[in-house]
Amino acid sequence: MAEKSFDFAKIPHIGEIACNGEFKAAKARNTATFEEKFDQKNKVVESLEKAIRLSGLKDGDTISFHHHFRNGDHIINQVVAKLAEMGFKNLTLASSSLAAVHAPLIEYIEQGVITHIETSGMRGELAEQISRGLMDFPVVFRSHGGRGEAVASGELHINVAFLGAPSCDPFGNANGYSRDDDESIMCGSLGYARPDAHMADTTIIITNNLVKFPNTPCAIPESDVDYVVVMDDIGDPKGIMSGATRYTKNPKELIIAKTAAEVVKAAGYVYDGFSMQMGSGGASLATARYLRQMMIDEGIKCRFALGGITGQITAMHEEGLIEKILDVQSFDLDAAKSLKKNHFHQQIDAPTYASYRRESAVNQLDFVILSALEVDTDFNVNVLTGSDGVIRGAIGGHPDTAEGAALSVIVCPLTRGRIPCVVPKVNTIVTPGSVVDVVITDQGVAVNPNRPEVAEKLVAAGIPVVSIESLAERAEHIVGKPDPIKFKDKIVAVVMYRDNTVIDVVRQIDED
Amino acid sequence: MAEKSFDFAKIPHIGEIACNGEFKAAKARNTATFEEKFDQKNKVVESLEKAIRLSGLKDGDTISFHHHFRNGDHIINQVVAKLAEMGFKNLTLASSSLAAVHAPLIEYIEQGVITHIETSGMRGELAEQISRGLMDFPVVFRSHGGRGEAVASGELHINVAFLGAPSCDPFGNANGYSRDDDESIMCGSLGYARPDAHMADTTIIITNNLVKFPNTPCAIPESDVDYVVVMDDIGDPKGIMSGATRYTKNPKELIIAKTAAEVVKAAGYVYDGFSMQMGSGGASLATARYLRQMMIDEGIKCRFALGGITGQITAMHEEGLIEKILDVQSFDLDAAKSLKKNHFHQQIDAPTYASYRRESAVNQLDFVILSALEVDTDFNVNVLTGSDGVIRGAIGGHPDTAEGAALSVIVCPLTRGRIPCVVPKVNTIVTPGSVVDVVITDQGVAVNPNRPEVAEKLVAAGIPVVSIESLAERAEHIVGKPDPIKFKDKIVAVVMYRDNTVIDVVRQIDED
Repeated sequence: MAEKSFDFAKIPHIGEIACNGEFKAAKARNTATFEEKFDQKNKVVESLEKAIRLSGLKDGDTISFHHHFRNGDHIINQVVAKLAEMGFKNLTLASSSLAAVHAPLIEYIEQGVITHIETSGMRGELAEQISRGLMDFPVVFRSHGGRGEAVASGELHINVAFLGAPSCDPFGNANGYSRDDDESIMCGSLGYARPDAHMADTTIIITNNLVKFPNTPCAIPESDVDYVVVMDDIGDPKGIMSGATRYTKNPKELIIAKTAAEVVKAAGYVYDGFSMQMGSGGASLATARYLRQMMIDEGIKCRFALGGITGQITAMHEEGLIEKILDVQSFDLDAAKSLKKNHFHQQIDAPTYASYRRESAVNQLDFVILSALEVDTDFNVNVLTGSDGVIRGAIGGHPDTAEGAALSVIVCPLTRGRIPCVVPKVNTIVTPGSVVDVVITDQGVAVNPNRPEVAEKLVAAGIPVVSIESLAERAEHIVGKPDPIKFKDKIVAVVMYRDNTVIDVVRQIDED
Repeated sequence: MAEKSFDFAKIPHIGEIACNGEFKAAKARNTATFEEKFDQKNKVVESLEKAIRLSGLKDGDTISFHHHFRNGDHIINQVVAKLAEMGFKNLTLASSSLAAVHAPLIEYIEQGVITHIETSGMRGELAEQISRGLMDFPVVFRSHGGRGEAVASGELHINVAFLGAPSCDPFGNANGYSRDDDESIMCGSLGYARPDAHMADTTIIITNNLVKFPNTPCAIPESDVDYVVVMDDIGDPKGIMSGATRYTKNPKELIIAKTAAEVVKAAGYVYDGFSMQMGSGGASLATARYLRQMMIDEGIKCRFALGGITGQITAMHEEGLIEKILDVQSFDLDAAKSLKKNHFHQQIDAPTYASYRRESAVNQLDFVILSALEVDTDFNVNVLTGSDGVIRGAIGGHPDTAEGAALSVIVCPLTRGRIPCVVPKVNTIVTPGSVVDVVITDQGVAVNPNRPEVAEKLVAAGIPVVSIESLAERAEHIVGKPDPIKFKDKIVAVVMYRDNTVIDVVRQIDED
């Protein structure tokens, strides 16, 4: 029989389970229609400034951003300008990456608004100035997997995440495209934003497109979102992504790509049900073309393609050659459209992609095809600093996939203009030689001595294998020995390996 | 220039960010093919006993289960039998619900293996015995939203979750159906298992169907899974779900359903873009038929349907009448097939469905149609205990949706056989009258006096409205006044409201 009051103390055990006490009253109900509730707007606040105030951000805190808008991003510059206007100082900016469009940050670094940066990459004037000693505190470069795990584990603690989204409902369910309107901005996967949304003390979604609940399936669920801000301009669609990644016509890249397809096949990693990832360089993308033909000729399928995804991969998915796609970042508009449309093209977050602490998707790769700025005779790879020692690249998923995949293949021309790409010693180690298996240039293929079985298989398949030293010698023979780069002592950046240990540092360039 | 060693102490700031130290060596790589890795099996352990040992389970701990296999579940009985065999004592069993099939638990309660139970519902011999005083510690009944939030917040801390899944890959990505083989067991959504998988100290997936990585899109991601156990028998497909939920032919239920459709329409909650949830009773399910015709006649669509999902709802989705489905539990095979197939039919977890602590989907409902065992003249509803005082029901999402929806509608016959359903005082309060708006019986409609605007709209639409007291009087007039149920003092169960406060207790029945 229903009772209205209980004496908990008299009831055995009840105190232990009735920790919230006795029922008093239900919450006040909102009897507006669902349609009317859209106008009540829930988590939507009227301005970025108000959202910042509500977040409780303080001087010295860490703010985070994603880089899915690439060089079309208008979020970071606008947010940091607002924070400067509001008088914030001494902030750490932790973005999943930075691009040339972020040069205005220089001003806010000079003003002391931003005093530390964490990122995967950096280019353009900001990178130039960092290399010339702009900041006191070294920039920390992490791989996508390393950053994802640093965020997920709390090692990189985020106070406030400012995450741009091409669509969001009033409750915070956010997507990298609109589910209703094909004319809106698209960036595809929001895989690098997910750990930030989940772990930040406060998560603010910034959108130009407020849509009706439920914006499902979604990239970022409302449970991870505190506030939604609507702004007219979140980015330039042209800079965010173009229609389709172009096929390279560079004859060097085409010969490298053809060789790469032959190498992974000869090494035993192309079979019915294999798995793969292609990096974003011209030669690695072109490899997919040759693999496609190989798969059609032999009647085999790929179980899953991973990583940064292009229209080449999604076209192969749509023609039935690739069963599943795990997409942490969509590289072009065709990839984003496929993510929106195809049930088995799924976005995954950075730790699921490449965490080193637990089983992650990179560990299931048969092979990965990766680019390089430089590779050395110890098979170490540099994708971060140029031949002048200036930062102009990104770690991305390079070390994550190289270590995770059963076969890691580096594709790069032997020389670029007057610059050798196979050298005695790379300027900056991003990926250590111990996880690099094969180096393919337009003038020869070298296999890491710690994979003798791979070298044997290539030779057996009629692919000539040369020593990495002979490639370095040939490069020097063609373009000569470059003058050593001069550096000052000051460390301007720290390079983390995927387990967030320090693998190298970048020093200030010496222009004296 | 690459350096092999750093003196952190000499580098400003570096110590702060290089907390993991200097890079030593990459992990040992697994160069087996992806195909070979399937046989290496990763998280798969060879027996349930081994998984239990690895979990570190101790006497006094809390184990959890989901109820998506309903009365076909073979997981709980097998796991508890194994725990008994291994000598465990004094465990708390926290299942999202329990069914008649779980009667064997009585033996393990008598042996002291299980000394406390948390659930949403209970039926059959176990419920009978509990009502007769089987356990010292009262059973705690929570709503689906209340349990989800108790798990998510840590209030209900789970040591080891044992979660049945009709498919799982070796890394733990689990689904409520196979993505490859239509002949395997299906249970559809795993929405109530998700919080357990995420929050438990150790999560063990039990599957009869180990599939290739990646088992995506998935219900439970590998990041939430520690071990995978393959067992031949996880459940009886016939008991898990039948082909389609039957349409009721009961004339009382049909008249109630027709009235319910007219009521929600007259109250202003059926319009282009509305939202809805149907409970699982015959009359509430039948309401969907009348709504469907209304929608076709008026050319309007539903933005989203929520909750326990039936084939009636998925058929309306497939004919374009319902844009999106948010599915926390699939009630029949047609619903499960739709979840597997339809991109905009998505499964959601219990807190996303009905958390009281944050914005959840129930708050976006225009209306919910709910069943009742009894409703009283204060509009309080009982869905847990029968007219003899014995437990034979489940709280489910009843209070969650009643409070969340803009209009909560209870459908029940005025009498069932010789039992009155509208009474002066319910035996057990599950949903308080303050969140119940309309009661629809086959012999009249009553509106809660705290919603006078709803009563006005119904009358204006020509729907007769009577007082709830007059319904109770009419019921008593028909079947007479039942003898009061006799109870002993002992409390056998505690009923929590959705905010996990105690709203009522169930006492031991007195058969003397």
